[in-house]
Amino acid sequence: MTEILHRVGIDLGDRSYPILIGSGLLSNSAIFAQCPKATQAVIVTNTTVAPLYAAQLQAALAAHYPQVRQVVLPDGEAFKDWATLNQIFDHLLGHGCDRKTVLFALGGGVIGDMTGFAAASYMRGVPFVQIPTTLLSQVDSSVGGKTAINHPLGKNMIGAFYQPRLVLCDLDSLATLPAKELSAGLAEVIKYGPIADMAFFTWLEQHMDALRQQDRAALAQAVKRSVEIKAWVVGQDEKESGLRAILNFGHTFGHAIEAGMGYGHWLHGEGVGAGMVMAAHLSQRLGLVDAHFVARLTRLIERAGLPTRGPVLDAQDNAGAYLSHMRVDKKAEAGDIRFVLIDGPGKAVLRSAPDALVREVIATCCTPAA
Amino acid sequence: MTEILHRVGIDLGDRSYPILIGSGLLSNSAIFAQCPKATQAVIVTNTTVAPLYAAQLQAALAAHYPQVRQVVLPDGEAFKDWATLNQIFDHLLGHGCDRKTVLFALGGGVIGDMTGFAAASYMRGVPFVQIPTTLLSQVDSSVGGKTAINHPLGKNMIGAFYQPRLVLCDLDSLATLPAKELSAGLAEVIKYGPIADMAFFTWLEQHMDALRQQDRAALAQAVKRSVEIKAWVVGQDEKESGLRAILNFGHTFGHAIEAGMGYGHWLHGEGVGAGMVMAAHLSQRLGLVDAHFVARLTRLIERAGLPTRGPVLDAQDNAGAYLSHMRVDKKAEAGDIRFVLIDGPGKAVLRSAPDALVREVIATCCTPAA
Repeated sequence: MTEILHRVGIDLGDRSYPILIGSGLLSNSAIFAQCPKATQAVIVTNTTVAPLYAAQLQAALAAHYPQVRQVVLPDGEAFKDWATLNQIFDHLLGHGCDRKTVLFALGGGVIGDMTGFAAASYMRGVPFVQIPTTLLSQVDSSVGGKTAINHPLGKNMIGAFYQPRLVLCDLDSLATLPAKELSAGLAEVIKYGPIADMAFFTWLEQHMDALRQQDRAALAQAVKRSVEIKAWVVGQDEKESGLRAILNFGHTFGHAIEAGMGYGHWLHGEGVGAGMVMAAHLSQRLGLVDAHFVARLTRLIERAGLPTRGPVLDAQDNAGAYLSHMRVDKKAEAGDIRFVLIDGPGKAVLRSAPDALVREVIATCCTPAA
Repeated sequence: MTEILHRVGIDLGDRSYPILIGSGLLSNSAIFAQCPKATQAVIVTNTTVAPLYAAQLQAALAAHYPQVRQVVLPDGEAFKDWATLNQIFDHLLGHGCDRKTVLFALGGGVIGDMTGFAAASYMRGVPFVQIPTTLLSQVDSSVGGKTAINHPLGKNMIGAFYQPRLVLCDLDSLATLPAKELSAGLAEVIKYGPIADMAFFTWLEQHMDALRQQDRAALAQAVKRSVEIKAWVVGQDEKESGLRAILNFGHTFGHAIEAGMGYGHWLHGEGVGAGMVMAAHLSQRLGLVDAHFVARLTRLIERAGLPTRGPVLDAQDNAGAYLSHMRVDKKAEAGDIRFVLIDGPGKAVLRSAPDALVREVIATCCTPAA
């Protein structure tokens, strides 16, 4: 049964699009009447998601497109590379897809990022629709137009800003999501509180148990408020020159954890969870927030099922390892690390910090490996 | 000695940029004061152009950028692929280039297209400057923001619309251009007459000899008027949904010649030269222009040193070979060939034509191989 619980409009002039949040969306053919017309539709998905949802989507699209095909890619961040992207191009060119062909990204963040970049680049741009099937991708990839692949020397280094025509956040698809991945998605939900909306933070404190139990209305509200806040931030800074960087709260430490442990050992959201705690501690040491706020944030992250302490990346010089990973972050400028800090609950600020303070935070917030 | 003969402003809102046309531009450090500031500048060029002009450019840029480096790619359309593009990314990431790094494309169309796509994609977009060193790239790549690489299944299939910050058309760099390539560039100059400006066409008839002898003022005027017309067309249709297609006058037949002969056997401009004659004949057969116009256009193309007759692509079914190549053109929609035809001198129109008429034109306009 189809139920659209929320509709969020992303206002970007002639690149505006709606985000629909609800149940039964991807199998409802009527939903796709608003998509661009074309002879061909191509579903891009992966080996994990395809057996779960691709047939439903294919059937729904068949009412609108004479030809609907699937490209099924291998699953995982390790395949977010040129070779896999090229499988999409091979398919499109091999089947005579023209510049009106619509791509449908069915999967998590990796599928969304790759399909989006394929859509941005194929014949210099074809329309695409996002159908994120994880909580993380529903709150994070629905807004902002970031698409990319990885390069051996860095994550998301090659890509484009490119907007979808429609985003469907079908909450039904979260039913098959492992609990660990639901928690990882909650990290990106939680971050919107400290950086922008403490009323939402309080709501999350009240509904964390419901969210982890996949209460439909609670999930819909969490996704809605997250994309609204993200849209507000991105709307003021589409190309990431300043304000948008606050969306990376917890990500600077988090990326260091991911990179230092080897990608795939910690989920992105797990790194962000521990990273937010570290960024909160750094904010406290700079006199921007008090201990009560840090404790409150730490508690909510813990209740979301996320780690609240960072791993030891190097037994000899742990802080040095974190610092060196953080200096090669894409947001760094000429080696200067820009931290997203909390300047009083509900407000973020972008600034650098003395290495000595950062080292203290790392010493406080990391647990030696068992 | 530096002389700026013309300055054409391309008005695209916050993506506007100037095209400077003149002498001594690429070695003049003062010119680059208007470029975006950054720690690093990277010159992307090829093995043919690097020994001629890269040192001059590097010296001029050194006044503005603490670090200036070169990426020297192999020369030729055969290298306009992902592997070569990735050499640029390897260099940028290997040298810690950040998202402010400015790329300078120094070379012909292949270098411009690849550097532009690298700039569009590196960290989702860094600034770039075009320094086209061939007549073709000066008139064709300076305006329009088209960037791309080839895919084994098609030319320019993967790319982006991405605007440079500045274009320098240094006429001095044409001095080292083979006569055959100057002629190929003239094909793209001539096309602007029939599609948009017969006064310019008359001017070209008067100055063709001066142009082929590399008269500086004549070249400057030809480049200026070409980019002005292209800018006018593109300004009304940046993303190529309709009007912009008229810039492909001669290109539908031309691409069939290039593809049918195997890329590299005919220069692009040579294919366009013969292709314009064929498109003019088709226009005549549809009653849009008279024989006098066709003869006048053919004569000018001949005086530019270009072929006016197409090659035989298939001794058994030559028209069939042309038609099958034209049906897979990127502009074709669901296999329907869209020809750019002349609807009275100075005005272009986009339309399909009966196969029988196209076959007659091909029979009339092709010379059997000697």
